[in-house]
Amino acid sequence: MINIPKGTQDILPEETPKWQYIERQLIEIAKSYNYKEIRTPIFESTDLFARGVGDSTDIVQKEMYTFMDKGNRSMTLRPEGTAAVVRSYIENKMHGAANQPVKLFYSGPMFRYERKQKGRYRQFVQFGVEAMGAENPAMDAEVLHMLYHIYSSFGLKTLKLVINSIGDMESRKEYKEALVEHFTPHIEDFCQDCQNRLHTNPMRILDCKVDRDQPAVKSAPKITEYLNDYSRNYYEEVKQHLDRLNIPYVEDANLVRGLDYYTHTAFEMMSEAEGFGAITTLCGGGRYNGLLEMLDGPSETGIGFALSIERLLLALEAEGIELETDERLDLFMVTMPETMNEAVKLIADLRVQGVRADMDYLDRKMKAQMKQADRVNAAYTFVLGGNEIESGTVKLKEMTSGEVTDVKIEDIAAYLKERV
Amino acid sequence: MINIPKGTQDILPEETPKWQYIERQLIEIAKSYNYKEIRTPIFESTDLFARGVGDSTDIVQKEMYTFMDKGNRSMTLRPEGTAAVVRSYIENKMHGAANQPVKLFYSGPMFRYERKQKGRYRQFVQFGVEAMGAENPAMDAEVLHMLYHIYSSFGLKTLKLVINSIGDMESRKEYKEALVEHFTPHIEDFCQDCQNRLHTNPMRILDCKVDRDQPAVKSAPKITEYLNDYSRNYYEEVKQHLDRLNIPYVEDANLVRGLDYYTHTAFEMMSEAEGFGAITTLCGGGRYNGLLEMLDGPSETGIGFALSIERLLLALEAEGIELETDERLDLFMVTMPETMNEAVKLIADLRVQGVRADMDYLDRKMKAQMKQADRVNAAYTFVLGGNEIESGTVKLKEMTSGEVTDVKIEDIAAYLKERV
Repeated sequence: MINIPKGTQDILPEETPKWQYIERQLIEIAKSYNYKEIRTPIFESTDLFARGVGDSTDIVQKEMYTFMDKGNRSMTLRPEGTAAVVRSYIENKMHGAANQPVKLFYSGPMFRYERKQKGRYRQFVQFGVEAMGAENPAMDAEVLHMLYHIYSSFGLKTLKLVINSIGDMESRKEYKEALVEHFTPHIEDFCQDCQNRLHTNPMRILDCKVDRDQPAVKSAPKITEYLNDYSRNYYEEVKQHLDRLNIPYVEDANLVRGLDYYTHTAFEMMSEAEGFGAITTLCGGGRYNGLLEMLDGPSETGIGFALSIERLLLALEAEGIELETDERLDLFMVTMPETMNEAVKLIADLRVQGVRADMDYLDRKMKAQMKQADRVNAAYTFVLGGNEIESGTVKLKEMTSGEVTDVKIEDIAAYLKERV
Repeated sequence: MINIPKGTQDILPEETPKWQYIERQLIEIAKSYNYKEIRTPIFESTDLFARGVGDSTDIVQKEMYTFMDKGNRSMTLRPEGTAAVVRSYIENKMHGAANQPVKLFYSGPMFRYERKQKGRYRQFVQFGVEAMGAENPAMDAEVLHMLYHIYSSFGLKTLKLVINSIGDMESRKEYKEALVEHFTPHIEDFCQDCQNRLHTNPMRILDCKVDRDQPAVKSAPKITEYLNDYSRNYYEEVKQHLDRLNIPYVEDANLVRGLDYYTHTAFEMMSEAEGFGAITTLCGGGRYNGLLEMLDGPSETGIGFALSIERLLLALEAEGIELETDERLDLFMVTMPETMNEAVKLIADLRVQGVRADMDYLDRKMKAQMKQADRVNAAYTFVLGGNEIESGTVKLKEMTSGEVTDVKIEDIAAYLKERV
């Protein structure tokens, strides 16, 4: 027997209504903020991620699904969404559009070859937004407010928004130098990854899981001490907007995130629900003023976030929140062998009129069909026998109350649509 | 600059509302027929497609995106949807569920490395349904009716449904033997692919594009002459249901489809719209009674179809049909530098209340903001200046009529929600 690829999951019919609900709500919210959907391909040139995510990251070094296509070009299943959206923004010259900033959202599968653990899959679904072309603290506040509103709208209560500023390129450069100087005398105590990072990307030593308890990590200089005036003011304004919007947050100077292209505002949304487990980050994002130029684009700026729908589902489960999914079946029609032909026609008519209706296709006896009507949780049922065809009227039974009403065959759709 | 992979496309913000509209409608219709969504991974074991699509098909031989994962397992980006849905059905033992038949739908990207041509992409989106566990002409009629209803619901008029029966395994076996006998004396006149197909899959010689005008193709025996009684009766009943449902169709004895696992009913939906181009097939499908066993599953049967959303969009364009997409923006708020802080708060409040609202983030002057309000096609606009904050009232302007109404700030959301 052939099995599903290791580390991936089927989302089965019992679960998909939750996904449909979440995706609709995310689209609806994104539209409230005037973000428009973009869909980029599942795979891109490997080079895009090497440059746009960063050669020194775990993602690029260890976790990518890379393959040669039949034209001998190296392709990679996208490990995240931002690089491709930026690629499309540049390729389609969106920075030249009259309508600025360009505000986009996306939703779809991403791929990382990670070790299996609860809540992590090698294929997972991310919803994300990117706002490009405006460097303005109010823009950052919009993105953070959308993020907070999204999670609140699902009823989540134990949210923790963590923010930081990594400053602009100038501040970041000075800070990196200070980190190299700070870590160099201790670097032999650190893991091999951190030793490699020392000169390529020393900020990532701060969020290394292996070395997080090293004294040199705790005593490291803080980015906030290295922000220049512009960066410090920018960060202050963002925080004032958050205060005005009544969005609670905590600051964490070690929040530098794994990707190379962040500047200024960086943030993560965590769940503090009990029993949520070790992975508490629901969503991460930040401003990336260097990314567009790094990908040979214009010197425009961007900010965005990406959230995992798998983790959102785990957070909902941890807080015991049930979504009001759309799984209703309006009608199960019980048929008889002699009315099968009429039944095929009638059910087709009802469905065209928008009634969610089903019937038996396994030549079940009437009693078994009644059981099936129960099992599929139909709101109404009726028997289509010879008498019903002749009289043109059926006895429509409301399944919860057991109440029976005579309804003309041609009025069934209208009757049901008023009631379900 | 890094470009999009050859043969793939970005679906840009101007186009995505159409996709959202189509996908919502497809889900709504599928729910009317009591089909439930399933989501399988983007890639599967290569073996699944070799067995489930068929080793002798062009798809498997020439068009698959196959790669080795980091665990040295051969994986393939799914070229179609049925094999994976059946894999999941078997792996999750859905044939043992109380609720039968199992009726599933899926929607998502598929991948085939084909030569570039209009309307064909190497990544394309298929929506499909699979009904497993019921061999009943009424089941086939349900699937065909859903297909017809889907295209009609978008307003398409120039539809042509082509059907055929390939019979059961017994009929198919006899027919294949007759074809081998018929083609053997002429096989040297045929293309290399057909010469290879003669013993592996002679039915595919009938739909070879290279050899379609060979006299031996035209004089070949017809499957309809080889149907046994059961297969012939089954086909007759399907056709009678279609007549009863007023679904027009034509029969084509050469419609055998490219995949190996079809039995009984086979069908294609074509567009006959002028200017639609050479590729007129919108959707294909059929019954596949051998597939589940071929994948080491139970001896259950299935029927389904898959339609391409790209082709549906082309057909809509060819018939000049505009979809009523959901792109409205309710409000563009014009701000002033001194009211920016209040604006950030007010727009957040409006969005949380479900108003689709936007404002300026580029420090534009009032006149340029007014232009922006026009450009983004906002239904309403107002200026938030110092006076408005002080009086608590704004002058809300309906953009089409130019009509201006005084509205209290706290009533804006309610006012707009009544009107848009």
